[in-house]
Amino acid sequence: MIIVMKMNATDIDVERVTDRIVELGFRTHLSRGEERTIIGVIGDERQLSREMFELMDGVEKILDVLPPFKLASRDFRPENTVIPLNGIRIGDRRIAVMAGPCAVEDRTQMREVAHAVKEAGVKILRAGAFKPRTSPYSFQGLGLEGLNILAEVREEFHLAIVTEVITPEDVPTVSKYADALQVGARNMQNYPLLHTLGANGKPVLLKRGLMSTLQELLMSAEYIVSHGNYQVMLCERGIRTFETYTRYTFDINAVPVLKSLTHLPVIADPSHGTGKWNLVAPIAKAAVAAGADGLLIEVHPHPSLALSDGAQSLKPETFARLMAELQAVAQAVGREL
Amino acid sequence: MIIVMKMNATDIDVERVTDRIVELGFRTHLSRGEERTIIGVIGDERQLSREMFELMDGVEKILDVLPPFKLASRDFRPENTVIPLNGIRIGDRRIAVMAGPCAVEDRTQMREVAHAVKEAGVKILRAGAFKPRTSPYSFQGLGLEGLNILAEVREEFHLAIVTEVITPEDVPTVSKYADALQVGARNMQNYPLLHTLGANGKPVLLKRGLMSTLQELLMSAEYIVSHGNYQVMLCERGIRTFETYTRYTFDINAVPVLKSLTHLPVIADPSHGTGKWNLVAPIAKAAVAAGADGLLIEVHPHPSLALSDGAQSLKPETFARLMAELQAVAQAVGREL
Amino acid sequence: MIIVMKMNATDIDVERVTDRIVELGFRTHLSRGEERTIIGVIGDERQLSREMFELMDGVEKILDVLPPFKLASRDFRPENTVIPLNGIRIGDRRIAVMAGPCAVEDRTQMREVAHAVKEAGVKILRAGAFKPRTSPYSFQGLGLEGLNILAEVREEFHLAIVTEVITPEDVPTVSKYADALQVGARNMQNYPLLHTLGANGKPVLLKRGLMSTLQELLMSAEYIVSHGNYQVMLCERGIRTFETYTRYTFDINAVPVLKSLTHLPVIADPSHGTGKWNLVAPIAKAAVAAGADGLLIEVHPHPSLALSDGAQSLKPETFARLMAELQAVAQAVGREL
Amino acid sequence: MIIVMKMNATDIDVERVTDRIVELGFRTHLSRGEERTIIGVIGDERQLSREMFELMDGVEKILDVLPPFKLASRDFRPENTVIPLNGIRIGDRRIAVMAGPCAVEDRTQMREVAHAVKEAGVKILRAGAFKPRTSPYSFQGLGLEGLNILAEVREEFHLAIVTEVITPEDVPTVSKYADALQVGARNMQNYPLLHTLGANGKPVLLKRGLMSTLQELLMSAEYIVSHGNYQVMLCERGIRTFETYTRYTFDINAVPVLKSLTHLPVIADPSHGTGKWNLVAPIAKAAVAAGADGLLIEVHPHPSLALSDGAQSLKPETFARLMAELQAVAQAVGREL
Repeated sequence: MIIVMKMNATDIDVERVTDRIVELGFRTHLSRGEERTIIGVIGDERQLSREMFELMDGVEKILDVLPPFKLASRDFRPENTVIPLNGIRIGDRRIAVMAGPCAVEDRTQMREVAHAVKEAGVKILRAGAFKPRTSPYSFQGLGLEGLNILAEVREEFHLAIVTEVITPEDVPTVSKYADALQVGARNMQNYPLLHTLGANGKPVLLKRGLMSTLQELLMSAEYIVSHGNYQVMLCERGIRTFETYTRYTFDINAVPVLKSLTHLPVIADPSHGTGKWNLVAPIAKAAVAAGADGLLIEVHPHPSLALSDGAQSLKPETFARLMAELQAVAQAVGREL
Repeated sequence: MIIVMKMNATDIDVERVTDRIVELGFRTHLSRGEERTIIGVIGDERQLSREMFELMDGVEKILDVLPPFKLASRDFRPENTVIPLNGIRIGDRRIAVMAGPCAVEDRTQMREVAHAVKEAGVKILRAGAFKPRTSPYSFQGLGLEGLNILAEVREEFHLAIVTEVITPEDVPTVSKYADALQVGARNMQNYPLLHTLGANGKPVLLKRGLMSTLQELLMSAEYIVSHGNYQVMLCERGIRTFETYTRYTFDINAVPVLKSLTHLPVIADPSHGTGKWNLVAPIAKAAVAAGADGLLIEVHPHPSLALSDGAQSLKPETFARLMAELQAVAQAVGREL
Repeated sequence: MIIVMKMNATDIDVERVTDRIVELGFRTHLSRGEERTIIGVIGDERQLSREMFELMDGVEKILDVLPPFKLASRDFRPENTVIPLNGIRIGDRRIAVMAGPCAVEDRTQMREVAHAVKEAGVKILRAGAFKPRTSPYSFQGLGLEGLNILAEVREEFHLAIVTEVITPEDVPTVSKYADALQVGARNMQNYPLLHTLGANGKPVLLKRGLMSTLQELLMSAEYIVSHGNYQVMLCERGIRTFETYTRYTFDINAVPVLKSLTHLPVIADPSHGTGKWNLVAPIAKAAVAAGADGLLIEVHPHPSLALSDGAQSLKPETFARLMAELQAVAQAVGREL
Repeated sequence: MIIVMKMNATDIDVERVTDRIVELGFRTHLSRGEERTIIGVIGDERQLSREMFELMDGVEKILDVLPPFKLASRDFRPENTVIPLNGIRIGDRRIAVMAGPCAVEDRTQMREVAHAVKEAGVKILRAGAFKPRTSPYSFQGLGLEGLNILAEVREEFHLAIVTEVITPEDVPTVSKYADALQVGARNMQNYPLLHTLGANGKPVLLKRGLMSTLQELLMSAEYIVSHGNYQVMLCERGIRTFETYTRYTFDINAVPVLKSLTHLPVIADPSHGTGKWNLVAPIAKAAVAAGADGLLIEVHPHPSLALSDGAQSLKPETFARLMAELQAVAQAVGREL
């Protein structure tokens, strides 16, 4: 941490700041420039509150030297974290495709999708039983009944299951039915939920909040990791910007940036990242080309009848075609599906 | 709802769309323009899924005629909803100031603040016992112990208490200690929490998500109202934009816009809306001038020692001065503190 | 400037960076922390390119100590810059209201507006002769003919004229007709235009770009000021955000922030900042309450017939009422209209 | 255009609106729903001002049926526009790579770059002689001297030249030296410049403003096209969002969206779109995978000595490696470099 003093800060101001730093058990390093005096704090600044200093007389601003996350950083663990799921080692060379409908609607729909995605080469099925919805008048998910359907389909088709959990209380139940637990974008900073998942141990698919910075996403991952669970996949799913033609703006930069900042695997969700089924294929290919470790793709047997997010869902046949195209792109960047 | 067909849509495409609308129990209204055919849907479109139509052959886009919220709208209830709290009728002529520290830290701090804000004319004390924090390494709140301190202070100083609740399970407990329950920005779309608050009946202070549109804020209010609780205050607390000089951008436009769209009271939080204590006074005055029904202001006896959000907290003496200035602005716009 | 080295930077990396700093005529200050080494550069960093260092081996990031603008800063000139215009000293106690239509349409319209705003107490008339329009199919302004109409109205009503200039070549001509020259939001970074205005000497009203940071606005002001013209008014006119209910989000925080960072006067444009006439009055009052030195307000005798921006224009009678209300708010914050 | 009336609009309100539509030479289509009456306007709504109606009594809002651009739309011209440049037909199967330094610095630098990019298979050289810079203290470009250097290099290496033009007056001069003229992001809505380029006839590379929607980009293209020049390439170069880790957020969605909305070729600029050289390769590959027709990449022989944008420039050897990788990705999506 570096404390920049105001142009007109007095020697007493400087002294008070350095005194407080020393009181807190850190060392200081003073540098007087032509226009400003700056004070360096030596030690692990993550334990210090910026505000404690920001409000002291003569302080102009605080600059961070260290990133605020530690366990999730590549500095801390240089090699990729690899998360095994139904035979795929996510984070390694092979790209994991997780596909399925936004919401579990009924047994017939789920068996139809499970069959289709399995045929297309998918090992991991995604579908939501608990659905957070913007409108109180929309379908809210089947809940426990949905989990039971997922359990049956898992058994029958030998697919791993990724499904969303929305309250800490549901974590034990959902863990019984799912192979990986998804944290939705609106819950990225639901800290009680992150705590519980950190203690729980099952792999977590953590979606970036639609207006969260990459640093905040990594801080949320740090919550889970610091509670003991390193099996965290980070998922870019589009951010909110001024552009309204697409529902969200898929932040493709996030893929290589996260790969450089953290050892955790990076998953891309082109379905939410665009909101339109006809943009899913190009953005899925782009994400693979940019280095994503996996994809989360919405597939529905009858998108126009879907109870949720139909507009961004692919039909099984379109999805099968995309899988073939993705294989080509994966190979072009030295990976495989 | 209006369905705009593509330039090259066929008669069969149009027929299929109108057939489906009729099947769903709505009437249609067809209009053939020079470049496009459009189909109007007659009935309460809130019960229809846009996506059902977006994906049909020949459909270009869907336009909404009605706002997606109903019970929260001024169309539905033209007169202001008024929420009584410790003698102030929030939503009426008098402006409610809710002041206090970000977090309950200990009994001494709370008694000191309570005394100070009461002296300055405040009737409603705000302070958090449960704190959602971005970093797992930050202070997480005192929990139940904090609620007990709040209860004592309420008794001693005859102040109403507003405090945050972060999970549905905590609602019954927190309701025992608080006069109004706050939903934080990160929980604005925590639907299980909104459900519970709708059934609970105590006044709710609903903060706008830092990434949420005004329409989404009103949809979250609709969740609460549609479960039977009309005592909802909407709180503008700054949104995230590209500007980084301030922590958030206080959306002053939100104040008059919300007053025109809904009957619910509108509260402004200049402390979070700026993130800097020296901007709190000008933005508080601006919010009152723009028509806010109340203010939420952070006050701490020793901001530089605060465990949370010290940088945006006012000292008691600065706050007392602000109260006098606010009174002048309130009177200039025909209201009073 | 502070250069933060990577965790694994070598001594040679550090040496190369310090060597280059010294070569460029600056002194260095080295500090070895527990996780990172940092190198301070002593001297006026505004003359250094960050990139020169960002790309050197072992460098993690660069932190700025000094703001990138100098002449426009309050550090450089602590007292307010005051710009006299038709008897109003802009930047001093009295708040300047500049009112008029978006575009000059014809002599009758301009005389009608001039009469109305003068009656309401206004000393400065605003209207555009050159109009930058998003669509090639929209009205593009009257050009020279519009300037002539403005000149007549100036003479007849004794009003100062503020009008937009959109190319460097037009500056001499427009200067003959106008008392202050406006740089529109889309031209805030039109550097040839800023150069010319810096050399020209007439007061400049510089509008913030709709997606420009406050720092960039101040850099554009620095362009003008560094060419010798200190008569620059900064105008907040709304920024682009994810919120779509209003055309732009008026950044009320910008008002007190700019007042603290710079000595230049700060003007608010609630007409563009909201895009809706019924929001102009509350936002104008808010801006005055927050400390603005002036207002730019669109007034049109027949808004629904306006060739440009009618939706955000006030009718003369609404404007006259607003002037009275603004006077009350101005007095509440120790100023006057 | 569809006009939605307020819930409480009177019959007289409706009549006045329909009367005005008819007066303007359009036909109307009335539809009375359960909560709202809506009025459809039949005819080319691009000639109508929304505001004319927005301000009439009883009007709630206006919905657009047609996109505001016409000549640039795929509806108007379904087949791809192809722009030939030095043997590459841009917009067709082969992907055009335009590479070179941000700014022309001197003859040696330009010859070095030209040699390197040509060796790597490039046919089109990019470099700026006129540079718009945020800070008045930064390098502003060599101007005419830079153009002369470009002319020599064009001759010697048989490369096509793309260079920026920043004022309408410079268009004739720059046209003599360049094969295509670039409009920078900050000039996307510099309408006098767009007019001149529309009349000029040389191919234009139009960069998306960092704050501009895709619809606004297409409106700026429409300016050029409507003045007679259809040779317009649209360039996505990153937009401004709340994310600050990267300089801009490259909007990958823009690539397939533009390809569907317009017949004009779409170019991607991963150098500006990220601001960091180590992100250029993954984003370049992503853009090709998503369907871009070309790439604009900054290459500099000595990035750390570059006078402008060094941080995002590739060294020649890194660039050569990228070209090989891009070839693989291009082939994976059925195209070639």
